[in-house]
Amino acid sequence: MAANGSIRSSVKVQWEEEGEDEINDFRDLIQKGIRELEPSILDPRHEGTADDWIERNSSMVRHTGKHPFNSEPPINRLTHYGFITPVPLHFVRSRGAVPKATWNDWTVEVCGLVKRPTKFTMDQLSNEFGFREFPATIVCAGNRRKEQNTVKQTIGFNWGAAVVATSVWGGVPLRDVLNRCGIFSRKNGAVNVCFEGAEDLAGGGGCKYGTSIKVEFAMDPARDIILAYRQNGEELAADHGFPVRMIMPGFIGGKMVKWLKRIIVTTKESESYYYLMDNKVFPSHVDAELADKEGWWYKSEYVINEYNINSVITTPGHNEILPIMPCRTRSSYILRGYAYSGGGKKVTRVEVTMDGGEKWDMCMLDHPAKPNKFGKYWCWCLWSLEVEVSKLLNAKEIAVRAWDETNNTQPEKLIWNLMGLMNNCWFRVRTKICKPDKGETGIIFEHPTIPGNQSGGWMKNSASTPSINTASTASTTYSLSEVKKHNTRQSAWIIVHGHVYDCTQFIKHHPGGVDSILSHAGTDCTEVFDAIHSGKAKKMLENYRIGDVRGECESDGGGCPAEGEDGHVDGQEGEIESSVRG
Amino acid sequence: MAANGSIRSSVKVQWEEEGEDEINDFRDLIQKGIRELEPSILDPRHEGTADDWIERNSSMVRHTGKHPFNSEPPINRLTHYGFITPVPLHFVRSRGAVPKATWNDWTVEVCGLVKRPTKFTMDQLSNEFGFREFPATIVCAGNRRKEQNTVKQTIGFNWGAAVVATSVWGGVPLRDVLNRCGIFSRKNGAVNVCFEGAEDLAGGGGCKYGTSIKVEFAMDPARDIILAYRQNGEELAADHGFPVRMIMPGFIGGKMVKWLKRIIVTTKESESYYYLMDNKVFPSHVDAELADKEGWWYKSEYVINEYNINSVITTPGHNEILPIMPCRTRSSYILRGYAYSGGGKKVTRVEVTMDGGEKWDMCMLDHPAKPNKFGKYWCWCLWSLEVEVSKLLNAKEIAVRAWDETNNTQPEKLIWNLMGLMNNCWFRVRTKICKPDKGETGIIFEHPTIPGNQSGGWMKNSASTPSINTASTASTTYSLSEVKKHNTRQSAWIIVHGHVYDCTQFIKHHPGGVDSILSHAGTDCTEVFDAIHSGKAKKMLENYRIGDVRGECESDGGGCPAEGEDGHVDGQEGEIESSVRG
Repeated sequence: MAANGSIRSSVKVQWEEEGEDEINDFRDLIQKGIRELEPSILDPRHEGTADDWIERNSSMVRHTGKHPFNSEPPINRLTHYGFITPVPLHFVRSRGAVPKATWNDWTVEVCGLVKRPTKFTMDQLSNEFGFREFPATIVCAGNRRKEQNTVKQTIGFNWGAAVVATSVWGGVPLRDVLNRCGIFSRKNGAVNVCFEGAEDLAGGGGCKYGTSIKVEFAMDPARDIILAYRQNGEELAADHGFPVRMIMPGFIGGKMVKWLKRIIVTTKESESYYYLMDNKVFPSHVDAELADKEGWWYKSEYVINEYNINSVITTPGHNEILPIMPCRTRSSYILRGYAYSGGGKKVTRVEVTMDGGEKWDMCMLDHPAKPNKFGKYWCWCLWSLEVEVSKLLNAKEIAVRAWDETNNTQPEKLIWNLMGLMNNCWFRVRTKICKPDKGETGIIFEHPTIPGNQSGGWMKNSASTPSINTASTASTTYSLSEVKKHNTRQSAWIIVHGHVYDCTQFIKHHPGGVDSILSHAGTDCTEVFDAIHSGKAKKMLENYRIGDVRGECESDGGGCPAEGEDGHVDGQEGEIESSVRG
Repeated sequence: MAANGSIRSSVKVQWEEEGEDEINDFRDLIQKGIRELEPSILDPRHEGTADDWIERNSSMVRHTGKHPFNSEPPINRLTHYGFITPVPLHFVRSRGAVPKATWNDWTVEVCGLVKRPTKFTMDQLSNEFGFREFPATIVCAGNRRKEQNTVKQTIGFNWGAAVVATSVWGGVPLRDVLNRCGIFSRKNGAVNVCFEGAEDLAGGGGCKYGTSIKVEFAMDPARDIILAYRQNGEELAADHGFPVRMIMPGFIGGKMVKWLKRIIVTTKESESYYYLMDNKVFPSHVDAELADKEGWWYKSEYVINEYNINSVITTPGHNEILPIMPCRTRSSYILRGYAYSGGGKKVTRVEVTMDGGEKWDMCMLDHPAKPNKFGKYWCWCLWSLEVEVSKLLNAKEIAVRAWDETNNTQPEKLIWNLMGLMNNCWFRVRTKICKPDKGETGIIFEHPTIPGNQSGGWMKNSASTPSINTASTASTTYSLSEVKKHNTRQSAWIIVHGHVYDCTQFIKHHPGGVDSILSHAGTDCTEVFDAIHSGKAKKMLENYRIGDVRGECESDGGGCPAEGEDGHVDGQEGEIESSVRG
């Protein structure tokens, strides 16, 4: 293997120096976002939470109540800005309170199986290493999960189809940092690289958010894995990991630890609760019970890294109405959407069918980003298709599927999995004829689902209908004011569907964390409970039922709190609620 | 970017030295093949062809008549040997006569955009560079094409499901060779790397078989691209490229030029006829006519490199009968097959359904090969599933689908494309109850198709029924002996379906080459013509009809010659017969 050395040096000289500062290509798009977007605000909905100091865009669709902040933008706002997503509209996946960090005090420790364990300051990271900057699309593996939840409840909350965003990320290559510290050979045990965030989370009885990748991935120059401290040309936003986070293009968001504190080279995979119990795709027959019983969580072949091929129709939007002028059915309408594939694979084809898959029309693709020097495409592409309105009039359904350069495409039918991850069946928008105005005809478009707890969408939301056995028993009844008193760790009651539950004993086992129950203690949290818990969790809850509410029951409206004062990471996925794993 | 240099040298020292000679892991399997397999022979069927000096395994299923040699093994023989395929059973895709090469006289020229153009002897390649040896599965992109042909004729011949093989390949990394010659930077025009074989082929009016890849792929150390001169521990076989060929694991076979003579670093992609007019996957609506009319052949996004996810049921075989003893329906049967994915992605899951996709059973996977040092899996895996015979009795159809680590899976339905490439829909074996012996019951299994011109398989072979307009016209008739005289370049007649065609004027436009017509001139070549030509070609043929055969018509049996004294490459795909491209 002696020749490898000479290759590598030649490559450096002749071929690797060509990295360019790609942010220049996208500066205008970034500026457009900054110019047009309304300012972020201290949202009153976050008052009283640990994040009350963070300014956020108020249009974001919230998934887990007041806190922690898990959100996606309305899909039309996402796509309005096109290729580069303004930072305030970038989806957020956090497990707990955002750390209050300062650039000067922050360190990233590299330890484990390295010869020179080192704690790097941010100044060291930004001054002593090369800087790579490139656009990359980050996808939460839970993107489009609500479609899965409408078929059968997963153990995750209702992500829509806007859990994807593209930014220009800048930072230092992970390879450089590991080599500076002298990573051991695999023979000497260096098999995995683990990443750890800053916060103390409740999962697994208390741990950091953590994940790991194989050392082969970490060291592969083609993968462009960086410790990122710049997003769209600025310091990271608090919600996105300030001052530094991992960016692993082509991988699911759940790998990209925010508020990065430690990189540990190990033999074993990460032992974080959030690595073991999250970001896994099981076969459809594996439900929560079977997963525990048969040890599916511990099978490493179900760990997900690179995401699969996917595409979505963004225009027309849900409930958009296209008025039809009788004399103008020959006019045209432009369908639009996005498509992406994992692992750097270019999306080469996007097709739309309006007859259930018999015929497919080819869409125009826009790939604004260049591939990296190993030919990898890290970004989504935007597609469009001009169709005659008369064709839309005759279509019951518009469906899209994408193909990537490896000739993989999306499955026609939804394939359910326990965590509701990587859902990539054809995205279908249904059409109906309506009379919007003064008897004129129009076409109204219906998306499959609407994110979060919003109702609507053509997929029947049968699975989120509470499936709890509500057969009444002659039980004790409590008044609302009585329940309200039990709002402490010493006595925590909640109301769900008119029943009263004493969760005091369960608090410490709750994988979503102590605080997520305590913040609801004494109140009716029916809506948020239903939104993020599986059938199994609902059955478990019955063990804690102590009676029913007497009189009128208040239902917690929009922004009620939910799962987990615990953890973080954009796109890290799935809410897990079994005490077996607690 | 200065830091990259230090990374690379550190990597070499700490981390890259771990390459191992993996052939040792597979020596027993290789030996088993050598020990058990009957000797290859000088097959009488090849007498009189340019390849008559090559010993071959006589069980190989031939696709293009006597010559050139395009063949796959019977699928049960392929799988009998398990993980490593004996060389004589490795499918062969050749475009023309096999070059008679000697080790000592052979050179590989590296030229184009390099600083030090060099002609390397085989001794130089094998002595002056590092040696990499690893098992890799080679897949012809046409694997499973006959299923496509039964739905609608493609422009390719009838490959079955055994156009896949695994060998231990050894050679010198392409990166090393390119760096030795000093490859230019991309800024200075080095964008593509072209590969050229040795033979003079007829396509495009005469050219070499050639293809190209992006320089990013060529230089990516993770891709393990080598100039291979060892297969299963020995020199290459003549049919597989002796003395040297390209091996690009995870890519389709069509990229892996055999009898490698030149590597040219260029700005443009390969201009070989065989690059432009082959190995492309178009959308389903693109037929031969549209492809020409709209210039689809020149759209680079339809070039294929990495293959997609695929799996096949090999056991039970076609027409296998499983006798059913009434008292033993609780006994079990083991289903078996293979699965692979391109680009180094590990196959993580194989599932079998016996109820049309409602329920899926998980198969056991056997992955004998380790990933490379960047985590890439270059080999197929073998799967098995033990099922109760009673379950088989109730199943009408057994279907398999695989998943890879990026969570891509196979489409349920066949998606047709013009060249019939990358077919990867669920592989379905049908079952029927039969009475094999003395009234006892059995289950007979039926595969979708049988390779080549063999009839059988449950997919109705409607597309290969000649669709030529045979409406009789009051035409001239010729006797067989008259036709026989027209067997020269000056006058070349052929018989197809009882009609006589004068192809003299067409010979020079025939994309399959002059010789492939000449070798049939004066004969009835109905069978081979139908097997490898599309409907469009069949229509074109009508332009050359001069009359009908008088009296008895002889049909050319099994081993009749076919397309192309032209070109080569295992797995390089598709027969193209439009003169528009000639």
